[in-house]
Amino acid sequence: MSKPVIAIDMGGTKIKIGIVQGNTVLSSDSIDADSGSGLRKRLPFIQKAVEDLLDREGISLAEITGLGMASPGIIDSIQKKILSIDKKFGDAPGIHLEEWCLQTFNLPFSIENDARSALWGEWKYGKAKNFDSAVIMTLGTGIGSAAIMDRQLLRGKHFTAGILGGHSVINYKGIHCNCGNKGCVETEASTWNLTSIARSDKNFAESPLAHAPAIDYELIFNLAQEGDAAALHIREQSVQVWSACAINLIHAYDPEILVLTGGIMASSSQIVPYIRKHIETHAWTPWGKISIEEGEFPDTAALLGIAHLVGN
Amino acid sequence: MSKPVIAIDMGGTKIKIGIVQGNTVLSSDSIDADSGSGLRKRLPFIQKAVEDLLDREGISLAEITGLGMASPGIIDSIQKKILSIDKKFGDAPGIHLEEWCLQTFNLPFSIENDARSALWGEWKYGKAKNFDSAVIMTLGTGIGSAAIMDRQLLRGKHFTAGILGGHSVINYKGIHCNCGNKGCVETEASTWNLTSIARSDKNFAESPLAHAPAIDYELIFNLAQEGDAAALHIREQSVQVWSACAINLIHAYDPEILVLTGGIMASSSQIVPYIRKHIETHAWTPWGKISIEEGEFPDTAALLGIAHLVGN
Repeated sequence: MSKPVIAIDMGGTKIKIGIVQGNTVLSSDSIDADSGSGLRKRLPFIQKAVEDLLDREGISLAEITGLGMASPGIIDSIQKKILSIDKKFGDAPGIHLEEWCLQTFNLPFSIENDARSALWGEWKYGKAKNFDSAVIMTLGTGIGSAAIMDRQLLRGKHFTAGILGGHSVINYKGIHCNCGNKGCVETEASTWNLTSIARSDKNFAESPLAHAPAIDYELIFNLAQEGDAAALHIREQSVQVWSACAINLIHAYDPEILVLTGGIMASSSQIVPYIRKHIETHAWTPWGKISIEEGEFPDTAALLGIAHLVGN
Repeated sequence: MSKPVIAIDMGGTKIKIGIVQGNTVLSSDSIDADSGSGLRKRLPFIQKAVEDLLDREGISLAEITGLGMASPGIIDSIQKKILSIDKKFGDAPGIHLEEWCLQTFNLPFSIENDARSALWGEWKYGKAKNFDSAVIMTLGTGIGSAAIMDRQLLRGKHFTAGILGGHSVINYKGIHCNCGNKGCVETEASTWNLTSIARSDKNFAESPLAHAPAIDYELIFNLAQEGDAAALHIREQSVQVWSACAINLIHAYDPEILVLTGGIMASSSQIVPYIRKHIETHAWTPWGKISIEEGEFPDTAALLGIAHLVGN
């Protein structure tokens, strides 16, 4: 059995911290990401949460192999730096995280993109296990992706390969994205842009959405099931966008399995059958039928994956 | 110096046949593809063209290393079979081409996708030389693509990786494609669908296009320069579609260089500056600026590439 590892998953709304041993999260906690004020100010809180977890489990730092961070954005996993990150944690590229880790915990540090980490977790221990080639699509604050080809994580020359599926253009006449592009998957259907998408719906004013304190996909899927016209339209558009994203990932990386995960997948029963049917009828896969599966670890895949990357 | 190779490039309208030695096409010829009636009926004509070329050059079959075929469609380069091909040469998957090559010429046979072959030609001898990572986009009857990552052709688990850029969805509400998908790059802007695209333009009836015996991109670009409204609109839409395709390829494969080639690139002065500017402002490449270049061998890249794949 491998020794335990500290794993951190930098989400847009919550930062998850776990102590992970092999395929098991021994203990975990989460703190508010509060990402508007940047990462530097969160580091003392992350430190505190790690120390509390170690206390709770009765594990000393000496027993820990290393610390791994799964982060959104473009990550140089060799130099261990965040190269570019889409507004969230905007100060992160200027922070020497490896040094922070050494000075704070005296532990070796690893960092990888969050979707790559999640795919690696699903590939080592979950739904993508034993496949030579796999793709993940994470539906959440943004839309993430990653690819494994020939049993290796695809990283590319500048660490952007595989992870920009949410920034593939699926509507070339579409709306502008945070990334500088337009008609990206995640500007057309993800949580960060959902309020704006909802407000532009022609039935918005007559929908309960107009009076909601906050709009998220849980609300959209609930209202759609109640027959609300605006929610039905947004749901229809969104699953079409995600299906187009899935097609683009499948056509780009030729996987045997597509794993779907992320917070929006709490409503998976309204998503997976649609995407599965769309891919069966629209993807060009003369070799056979691609597996479309919900992730086995919706909350912890990235923790498991980055922990494995630290330990190996 | 390597020994000469017979190289065949199966185009949608012309089949090119060349005798290639290293980076030089010693001699070449082309015959009508006549692809509506299938590949089997063209094989005797290909044989004749090969024999004529050898006669012309005074080269005997004994001096030839092998025969390579660059073909559209999904190609199993290990089993040496055409797995799936988009209507053109629809009988090709049922033809044992390696056997035909052995029986006809007693030569070893290789086959690879045409865009992969063209990229390999540009990478060995042309514009993509010395780059670790490169992508090609071929603008023609259809839209082809291929990728080199870490100095290797990307093929994928089932030989579809890299080559389906023309079937990435860039308009998820778009028109149906031959491949079964909808809103693909090549159904929105390529020669095979251009007549239909032109006819649906709102200014078509008042355009010289309405009286043209045949509509191709050369005509569109010429009329656009003369200020014809329909041609201007089609040109604008098309370069936007190809730019979106370029973004999707760049985001998918993280290349240092994008090579543009194919018949439509005869009008490159109206295409390349637009795509280059679009990528500079829309692609997410925090590492720096990607090179956007016209291919060095617009007519022979696939011949050079497949010849190299035969010889090595």
